[in-house]
Amino acid sequence: MNVRNIKLEISYDGTNFHGFQIQPDQRTIQGELQKAIGMIIKQQIKITASGRTDTGVHARKQVCNFHTESRIPVEKWVDALNSLLPEDIVVKSATEMPFEFHSRFDVKKKIYRYSIYNDRVVDVFRRNYTWHYPYSLDIETMKKASQLFIGEHDFTSFSSAKSEIENRTRTIYEAEIGKIGNEIYFQISGNGFLYNMVRIIMGTLVEVGSGKMSLEDIRSLFREKNRSMAGITAPAKGLTLWDVEY
Amino acid sequence: MNVRNIKLEISYDGTNFHGFQIQPDQRTIQGELQKAIGMIIKQQIKITASGRTDTGVHARKQVCNFHTESRIPVEKWVDALNSLLPEDIVVKSATEMPFEFHSRFDVKKKIYRYSIYNDRVVDVFRRNYTWHYPYSLDIETMKKASQLFIGEHDFTSFSSAKSEIENRTRTIYEAEIGKIGNEIYFQISGNGFLYNMVRIIMGTLVEVGSGKMSLEDIRSLFREKNRSMAGITAPAKGLTLWDVEY
Repeated sequence: MNVRNIKLEISYDGTNFHGFQIQPDQRTIQGELQKAIGMIIKQQIKITASGRTDTGVHARKQVCNFHTESRIPVEKWVDALNSLLPEDIVVKSATEMPFEFHSRFDVKKKIYRYSIYNDRVVDVFRRNYTWHYPYSLDIETMKKASQLFIGEHDFTSFSSAKSEIENRTRTIYEAEIGKIGNEIYFQISGNGFLYNMVRIIMGTLVEVGSGKMSLEDIRSLFREKNRSMAGITAPAKGLTLWDVEY
Repeated sequence: MNVRNIKLEISYDGTNFHGFQIQPDQRTIQGELQKAIGMIIKQQIKITASGRTDTGVHARKQVCNFHTESRIPVEKWVDALNSLLPEDIVVKSATEMPFEFHSRFDVKKKIYRYSIYNDRVVDVFRRNYTWHYPYSLDIETMKKASQLFIGEHDFTSFSSAKSEIENRTRTIYEAEIGKIGNEIYFQISGNGFLYNMVRIIMGTLVEVGSGKMSLEDIRSLFREKNRSMAGITAPAKGLTLWDVEY
């Protein structure tokens, strides 16, 4: 049999999911996707993704792949899956890849965007996609602070203390802070991210923007390797997996 | 007793409401607002709005008012109500007005915006706020057609056939079509709108954009006064009450 490797680019609104990874009795993105694929090929399969996303975290572009003996032409997968998937997951494209392509191991770069709604009253249309932060923030200082994360660093201070991963060194390629209307966005790209890393960096940048932490405090966080000295873990709903590059 | 007239500017995501107007056993914007106000002043009151919105229609800015003997300072109303309201209704401002102010009768201008998501695959984050229309549209012709609605016209062809209202003449001040990314928006302002009017105009403009109707067809619709010759009623979720001016 000829086994094909199908890559899917998907997008989802994480609001009503218990994260990406399949779990018994929970609504998950992986669970819904595997169910829809299973209905098409009449067979249970397991998909791989570029990485998990947590409960409430969104994806503008997430990449998955799966192997199948199905002969369904690759251009049919998008409409077939979208007709079966719930409305908060959308398949944007399907491509046949070489057998060896792996959506997690082959990642070259991941891009996340975190959005803050910075006005007194929440924007009802952005309530599930932004962290409502009603106090003033010094964006210029936050921009300076964001640059300290670029390069190769040990991110122990900026990852969940529960994480058991040993190598906490990651390389950040770009970090940008900007403002559109009342929304402040923080976009960061790197070769990989530890658990909660973007949300803890965001929480720390907000401490800087509100004057509670200084640039020097961030520099010492890289030396101290102590999660408890960094800012809070910013709420999941403001985070979106923006893009994945191979 | 000193009776005060409080004007509220509110914003709501219409997705999970059965429209603005209170109805028994249905979740409505008026119902939720009156409940929250009632909890604060310990008294049942009735609010008036600039007009109703249908099931699924949103408001970026809707204006309401109510009379109360409560002495709560006007600047406290925003936070007090937002702490009690569900997350899909937000009070943006509260102002004390002269006793005579009436949020419906005193309207000078209403502005609506209709949004179409015009790409093959839906945008998951805009699914509740846009009409997903996957076929190509000729925007330049739609722009020309939109200009035919400006001025004073009998809008019988562009209002629900069920409407029992006698005077169907309304004045449109501005009509604009634009495109941002994959989104086509149609913004229209006037002194008043008939039932389903913006949605039927939108449905008709899409007929024009897809080549099924001509500019001349629109001109004859104004003469014929026949709803069945116009385009479909575009889906409610693409419509947003954008602004109300007094």
